[in-house]
Amino acid sequence: MAGNTIGKLFRVTTCGESHGSMLAGIIDGMPPKFPLSEIDLQNDLNRRKPGFSKYTTKRREEDKVNIFSGTFNGYTTGTSIGITILNTDIRSKDYSEIKNIYRPNHADYTYEKKYGIRDYRGGGRASARETAIRVAAGAIAKKYLNYIYGIKIRGYLSQMGDIYCPFKSWKEIEKNPFFCSNPNKIIQLSQKIKTLKKNGDSIGAKIIIIAQNIPIGLGEPVFDRLDADIAHAIMSINASKSIEIGDGTDVAQQLGSLHRDEMYKNGFSSNHSGGILGGISNGNDIIVKAAFKPTSSIKIPGKTITKKGIETSIITKGRHDPCVGIRAVPIAEAMLAIILMDHILRHRAQCNTLINIPR
Amino acid sequence: MAGNTIGKLFRVTTCGESHGSMLAGIIDGMPPKFPLSEIDLQNDLNRRKPGFSKYTTKRREEDKVNIFSGTFNGYTTGTSIGITILNTDIRSKDYSEIKNIYRPNHADYTYEKKYGIRDYRGGGRASARETAIRVAAGAIAKKYLNYIYGIKIRGYLSQMGDIYCPFKSWKEIEKNPFFCSNPNKIIQLSQKIKTLKKNGDSIGAKIIIIAQNIPIGLGEPVFDRLDADIAHAIMSINASKSIEIGDGTDVAQQLGSLHRDEMYKNGFSSNHSGGILGGISNGNDIIVKAAFKPTSSIKIPGKTITKKGIETSIITKGRHDPCVGIRAVPIAEAMLAIILMDHILRHRAQCNTLINIPR
Amino acid sequence: MAGNTIGKLFRVTTCGESHGSMLAGIIDGMPPKFPLSEIDLQNDLNRRKPGFSKYTTKRREEDKVNIFSGTFNGYTTGTSIGITILNTDIRSKDYSEIKNIYRPNHADYTYEKKYGIRDYRGGGRASARETAIRVAAGAIAKKYLNYIYGIKIRGYLSQMGDIYCPFKSWKEIEKNPFFCSNPNKIIQLSQKIKTLKKNGDSIGAKIIIIAQNIPIGLGEPVFDRLDADIAHAIMSINASKSIEIGDGTDVAQQLGSLHRDEMYKNGFSSNHSGGILGGISNGNDIIVKAAFKPTSSIKIPGKTITKKGIETSIITKGRHDPCVGIRAVPIAEAMLAIILMDHILRHRAQCNTLINIPR
Amino acid sequence: MAGNTIGKLFRVTTCGESHGSMLAGIIDGMPPKFPLSEIDLQNDLNRRKPGFSKYTTKRREEDKVNIFSGTFNGYTTGTSIGITILNTDIRSKDYSEIKNIYRPNHADYTYEKKYGIRDYRGGGRASARETAIRVAAGAIAKKYLNYIYGIKIRGYLSQMGDIYCPFKSWKEIEKNPFFCSNPNKIIQLSQKIKTLKKNGDSIGAKIIIIAQNIPIGLGEPVFDRLDADIAHAIMSINASKSIEIGDGTDVAQQLGSLHRDEMYKNGFSSNHSGGILGGISNGNDIIVKAAFKPTSSIKIPGKTITKKGIETSIITKGRHDPCVGIRAVPIAEAMLAIILMDHILRHRAQCNTLINIPR
Repeated sequence: MAGNTIGKLFRVTTCGESHGSMLAGIIDGMPPKFPLSEIDLQNDLNRRKPGFSKYTTKRREEDKVNIFSGTFNGYTTGTSIGITILNTDIRSKDYSEIKNIYRPNHADYTYEKKYGIRDYRGGGRASARETAIRVAAGAIAKKYLNYIYGIKIRGYLSQMGDIYCPFKSWKEIEKNPFFCSNPNKIIQLSQKIKTLKKNGDSIGAKIIIIAQNIPIGLGEPVFDRLDADIAHAIMSINASKSIEIGDGTDVAQQLGSLHRDEMYKNGFSSNHSGGILGGISNGNDIIVKAAFKPTSSIKIPGKTITKKGIETSIITKGRHDPCVGIRAVPIAEAMLAIILMDHILRHRAQCNTLINIPR
Repeated sequence: MAGNTIGKLFRVTTCGESHGSMLAGIIDGMPPKFPLSEIDLQNDLNRRKPGFSKYTTKRREEDKVNIFSGTFNGYTTGTSIGITILNTDIRSKDYSEIKNIYRPNHADYTYEKKYGIRDYRGGGRASARETAIRVAAGAIAKKYLNYIYGIKIRGYLSQMGDIYCPFKSWKEIEKNPFFCSNPNKIIQLSQKIKTLKKNGDSIGAKIIIIAQNIPIGLGEPVFDRLDADIAHAIMSINASKSIEIGDGTDVAQQLGSLHRDEMYKNGFSSNHSGGILGGISNGNDIIVKAAFKPTSSIKIPGKTITKKGIETSIITKGRHDPCVGIRAVPIAEAMLAIILMDHILRHRAQCNTLINIPR
Repeated sequence: MAGNTIGKLFRVTTCGESHGSMLAGIIDGMPPKFPLSEIDLQNDLNRRKPGFSKYTTKRREEDKVNIFSGTFNGYTTGTSIGITILNTDIRSKDYSEIKNIYRPNHADYTYEKKYGIRDYRGGGRASARETAIRVAAGAIAKKYLNYIYGIKIRGYLSQMGDIYCPFKSWKEIEKNPFFCSNPNKIIQLSQKIKTLKKNGDSIGAKIIIIAQNIPIGLGEPVFDRLDADIAHAIMSINASKSIEIGDGTDVAQQLGSLHRDEMYKNGFSSNHSGGILGGISNGNDIIVKAAFKPTSSIKIPGKTITKKGIETSIITKGRHDPCVGIRAVPIAEAMLAIILMDHILRHRAQCNTLINIPR
Repeated sequence: MAGNTIGKLFRVTTCGESHGSMLAGIIDGMPPKFPLSEIDLQNDLNRRKPGFSKYTTKRREEDKVNIFSGTFNGYTTGTSIGITILNTDIRSKDYSEIKNIYRPNHADYTYEKKYGIRDYRGGGRASARETAIRVAAGAIAKKYLNYIYGIKIRGYLSQMGDIYCPFKSWKEIEKNPFFCSNPNKIIQLSQKIKTLKKNGDSIGAKIIIIAQNIPIGLGEPVFDRLDADIAHAIMSINASKSIEIGDGTDVAQQLGSLHRDEMYKNGFSSNHSGGILGGISNGNDIIVKAAFKPTSSIKIPGKTITKKGIETSIITKGRHDPCVGIRAVPIAEAMLAIILMDHILRHRAQCNTLINIPR
């Protein structure tokens, strides 16, 4: 695998399967003497955690995080930070029947073919359960970015199936289980989920993450552009199928005279570019959009094959979100935070300054 | 910067500015005893090179590549491969007037703010000129992937502004200067470019790259998923604003029962997932889509500020493509080839086999 | 810190302090379908662990390792392997008095100056306690190298102070607490340790590690030569002050006609080069030598300063090895195993073969 | 190979063979706005270059360096720096007769076995010729370290065969072709070389490199300790067989009460540890020792085998240094500079400060 680490200077390495005893992460490169304790991580973990809304999976996990290394008397020491999250609500018997069969649109087939072996209990390492550690690590980055640079990273659900939820208010987002910024859409969203559950089907979604108060100068061209590293991080989230910066795919139909964000003494006239020019942050808000495919695990029978190659069909039981895109909001926020943190450290290394705080 | 390298095992490191004497790259990790000479790289360089069609910039560069290291008697030796491409058609006086002013939507402002200095001649390192080395490096990967694994990587223009060009035929693509697979669209595209030139404006575009005959098992979850690394590579191309895998942003409105690619003895029924499941290739074609913003350099006056912060407006002279998305086709092919090559080596390392050649 | 990972493809990342609740490691890149359980790691952990011989520290740790991720039904899955080792015998009160004072020759001063904060309990992260995870990770590599390639990695104490212990027999090594291959030296070594304990002093040591049955071709010139990576790994062990390959420092006085290992049909006539030529293994035994400084923590008063810069003197209490070099044997074996494992994977990636098994 | 890059943030990537048209390097991560031109690199290149003393190889190379990227108007821009050095004095016919035979103690055999192919002209990539780029890159680091932090990095020959040359004066070093600090030893050294040439033999050597005025706090435990990274860098130099920090191998016989450097208000009483404690610089001089094996290429017949495995003997013709250790001085200085530079950037990234300038 050798792909379980992200970041060059702020480095997050993870392990743990859906139905193992616990998940763990090692966060390396954290600046020292920064106040940090479990409570700083728990809020985002709660936002991501399953089982606490009728709109997500029924698996109930407390997702209590434990920091067992890298802090001393409530402060980071500059050494590697170790964190664990126990798996408590495991029902592996749910999965024994998929031992010899590949669920369509799931990683079953590719893991088996790549490694010749797979931990089929709950999807093993391919389960979205591993994202809990991402969220915990991201919360560390978020706290630092906010304390030291005033950076704010927040996201919301912008689309679920054919329901579009344009931005209304940040305050609304934490008041509903959909990360929806518009209170008028909640009933529609609830009903959609109910219908999906009844039908045993699932639905895709799109989210938008915005980082505000970004210093000018983050990003390392030409390959480690800030947008390239963000794309990497967001596309590494389970079920992610697209990543857009600023106007994203819409730029294909824009004229240059429309797209360009003109500059004035007090900043840019617009933000089509999503806060990044030439791979480097320009001080404008960073705007990231991502679409997530519908949950693979559905109760409508689907054609598939067994390990031996025999054609059959399958219904996926178990406890699953009808729309994985919803819980992607705190995960994508975390991934963006990790990348911004990494690039702040990279910038400090080379340029030895971060004076260009935006207006 | 420290961001001028891409790849973990097949590593490409580049340098060179738009108006320096030359561009160079070092390609490390290439398997030994593989036949390689300049001629293998020249074809793709010619496809990318400027000045040879009336639809792209007027700058004429031969883009003759020189391999000066890493081969012996026509074969790779396993040591680092050195390549250079001379800059021959430089007219730096074109650029002196932008020395103290930031062109809107260009990297001028962000480079100046990040580094406190910038090579303003032709955009310096921020110019798309650097992609010549990417194309050369990608051609090495392409040849290896094709010889050893039969992999084919090809792309085409799928949209320019409001002109949609759905796939018609691979044969058509090299017959027109737009990488358009549909001969019926050529006149429309030509006229659009003519109009843009007359107006001094530019336009965005969207391209699709497809890799065929992919071995099952490429990709290293959880962070170095194949799609995550592809997203990184494609988003690192100048002007890129989105990257989609398979159905991409469309998945947001899909039901799970529609999106999932069902499996049969002879393969998948469809390819909504774009050839990647759980971050690992499933043997289906890999489908990558990317949108490119309109060229920043246009002749319509735009509001901007000077280095001293005084508001002014600017017309960007010089020789520029009205649609940078067109030439992005060979560049994106190259980036995809580099990532696939890297992942083939990574897979060989851990799994010590590549037997799962797709049907 | 961002320095808690070693290896490019077989990657070991660690965390944990001397007096935290536990140590942990994540091992990434392990080939799949390989039989692995805790019992494979425990033997080497027992060889390293403290408190079980009167010649080492009195701290008693069971060093029971737990594999909580990356295996399934007794086999590796190719995903990241998570391991933990609990700290059980912690007596942090021993250390409170060094909170505001720097022990000479210890990392107290440098950690405090670098990070502005330090976990002074038992040396925190600077304690040799962290090497337990190295040994566990190394044991995984050792098992693989031995099963798949027949590689054997073993070490012994070659010198302690003025007592020289030239190689006698591998069988003897595990029969005494000194990793001494010569039974005739045991009494001398025991008496030396007793005297040191009485005097409250410590002593340096030298060890030799030998890897046998090495495939030809491991090593990636020019910077990641096999010997360079071994030097990195060995010098990263606490208290290590030198690393030599083959004849090491002695080569300074050798003639070329003496040093060169002549080649015959059946192999080399000698092994002055220690199994590596041009940074690549030549099939001969790899011979690594390392010297370890005497334990810093001694009971003879030493001059030092307080955090406030006031001069004083200190006696280091607590439970310490009089000769850290002894227990360095299993640690150095582990580090060599990790590097060889990494290079085997790297070689497989590029050259796609490992046929050159030595005679 | 994939091993042609060194450094995490200050990254040096190289290519080029002994008898190719040129050598090249890309230096990434250099801080911007720093004055830099070819003249800054040429002095160290001249110190390393062959053919200008009767004590080294007769190959005459001007080693004129060209910076073709990464600077603008005499200042670094923060983008990747490209450098080339032409090979001018190539006589490849000297080497054709070793095409099918392995020179003992040379990389011929290991390159051929690893890659299945080798560029036998002058040793190809295995030749010490590649170190010219190291010296050029190191000179960039040296200049920065000296300007910004006042760091001085200098080395000298401490031993050649049985001639010991303890330190006398830095001033003497550049006055003789041996980097010998003691003028009384020059005649002895000259005569030794003359005898060796007459006999067609070669000799090993030992050098010492000292870095002064080092900030406290450089080094990233636990694996990327400063000494571990230095060991890597020094051991990556051709012919290097040992690396020692401070007292090095001598610590094996030292008592703890002797070895420890006691601390006073004004610094350390001694420097047995060579300036590094716990992997982190303590402000004392960094002392690095390295031994280099005798040149492999000698004129005394040696037993070897052909590519087909037939036993034979060989005399190595061509133009070779009788003692490669001499010219290792500027190379080792360069490698130490690269590592210190890298660690200064790494420290700035995490700790965002470098205030602990030593006394």
